[in-house]
Amino acid sequence: MQDQRQVSAEDSLIARYFKPLATDPGALALVDDAAILSASADDIVVTTDAVVEGVHYLATDPPDTIARKALRVNLSDLAAKGASPAGFVLTLALRSKEDAWLRPFADALGEDAKSFACPLLGGDTVSTPGPQMISITAFGRVPKGRMVGRTGASPGDLIFVTGTIGDAALGLDVLTGGVAAAALTDPAARDYLVDRYRVPRPRNALASIVRDYASAAMDVSDGLAGDLAKLCTASGVSAVVNAHQVPASPAAAIAISAVGFEKLVSGGDDYEVLCAVPEGRSAAFSRAAEQAGVQITMIGTIIAGQGAPQWIDAQGREIKLRRLSYSHF
Amino acid sequence: MQDQRQVSAEDSLIARYFKPLATDPGALALVDDAAILSASADDIVVTTDAVVEGVHYLATDPPDTIARKALRVNLSDLAAKGASPAGFVLTLALRSKEDAWLRPFADALGEDAKSFACPLLGGDTVSTPGPQMISITAFGRVPKGRMVGRTGASPGDLIFVTGTIGDAALGLDVLTGGVAAAALTDPAARDYLVDRYRVPRPRNALASIVRDYASAAMDVSDGLAGDLAKLCTASGVSAVVNAHQVPASPAAAIAISAVGFEKLVSGGDDYEVLCAVPEGRSAAFSRAAEQAGVQITMIGTIIAGQGAPQWIDAQGREIKLRRLSYSHF
Repeated sequence: MQDQRQVSAEDSLIARYFKPLATDPGALALVDDAAILSASADDIVVTTDAVVEGVHYLATDPPDTIARKALRVNLSDLAAKGASPAGFVLTLALRSKEDAWLRPFADALGEDAKSFACPLLGGDTVSTPGPQMISITAFGRVPKGRMVGRTGASPGDLIFVTGTIGDAALGLDVLTGGVAAAALTDPAARDYLVDRYRVPRPRNALASIVRDYASAAMDVSDGLAGDLAKLCTASGVSAVVNAHQVPASPAAAIAISAVGFEKLVSGGDDYEVLCAVPEGRSAAFSRAAEQAGVQITMIGTIIAGQGAPQWIDAQGREIKLRRLSYSHF
Repeated sequence: MQDQRQVSAEDSLIARYFKPLATDPGALALVDDAAILSASADDIVVTTDAVVEGVHYLATDPPDTIARKALRVNLSDLAAKGASPAGFVLTLALRSKEDAWLRPFADALGEDAKSFACPLLGGDTVSTPGPQMISITAFGRVPKGRMVGRTGASPGDLIFVTGTIGDAALGLDVLTGGVAAAALTDPAARDYLVDRYRVPRPRNALASIVRDYASAAMDVSDGLAGDLAKLCTASGVSAVVNAHQVPASPAAAIAISAVGFEKLVSGGDDYEVLCAVPEGRSAAFSRAAEQAGVQITMIGTIIAGQGAPQWIDAQGREIKLRRLSYSHF
């Protein structure tokens, strides 16, 4: 594995596919081992998330959607923390360097980097004999001390989520021929859900609004039920959630009779923002979100206590969830 | 894969093994999706390097050495850039969560994080059906505008390297039963080389000295010959290197007759600092390095030109290297 041609193969892979994405001066045009995040009065918010073939995406997923997902799961964290994207570094573990895979991957990554104003700063490309993996560490900026954490929710705060919940889990179900796949006969509904699984819609348009109004926030990545439980634990509070208020897309509403409500709130990959907002600020929060073009829905209330969040149906009866989240182990 | 026990298994894995490492306030005790690098007058230097089982380390390597290698390859980049460590984020792609592997891995990572003053800030733990992989993004601080790049070397600058070159490549050869393994009969020499392969010695003690004296620097990770060629290309210069001045350990000196000189300078995993220092500053540089306890050796001179660096033997004859570097593709 050691000859001059192979050196230039590795270097030319980076030059051909990734140098065009390194538009930030801090990326040093990818000729260095390191990148620079310039000194500023802002705190740097750091988040890291990896996607693994066969775990977070399917080997048959189109490479452009894999690239978008790898970056967007990190952009979603920045949005929930109230941070503006500042750039990212990429570790790419590849089995091969086929142009048919790398070209659409790099092009889509570049498009997303541009549209989310989050340039590539650096990275590492390694070979692996196993499944491909894309690990991204993304950086955002917030005014000093203003990152929105998980620990600030207080009793009385209202609980909001963006977008719709459960679509991605149903999309995976469609792709893998599960129960939802059989229940959904409309191709447009199936395509919608699959697209939601493959290409998250991170709510970066809401970032500064989350910063201005939310007492606590996180992105919903492992299932709404489990993620809300984590936010409550971190804040030392509990919650009451009105299950019938959880926003579902039309396609999810069709599937729900087949798969059950629990699937929507325990599946992963939503990449929506979950936040707690003090009641007195909630009207202003809602107006700001509407102006930003981001759909938000109030789904419940933070309450005092240490217990798990309670899920209540339209008749006021408690729903016992058996599963809360996706977990890797 | 979705039930409450498994949620707590994943959370408890992080709590049990990695929370004790998250000593920096910016790590938020690993209860958030994000970490904070506080605003300061310094530039943040960012570097990312991954190690893959079967590629960068052997499946049979002890887990404590794998942890140290994963962090130290990144610390080495910070050292060469003149940066003080500020922290790191970790992506761990695991097949299993066996305590017998994770406990020594996390303990050694914690020891290194402490001794190099580079605390764990956050991370992501994912499952993989394939080889394990550890991807680390490390952060360092330098006074604004003072990161040492690859582009500043000028004709007349002297070329220095730290430590000894080629030990790690020979150590891998010993572990895999190669030519060096047969040539080295002394167990102590074999153990020394294996240890150099498994546990790099990043030269962070030299970081501020590199910043004060070097015109260009990088760490030697893919082979001295190839890395020097990269530095020269980035700086728009060439070089003359005196091959017999390249520092070799006693163990490497024994092996060299069996494996040849080229193996030393084209193998990877040295994690030494390569730098160019203006001649007028080289005496002061040498004194500062000695005071810091870091061995440095002058191996050649930067010259004008666009050609590949020339390697000269003790008789003044040019050595033609067929291989310059390790490459993944």
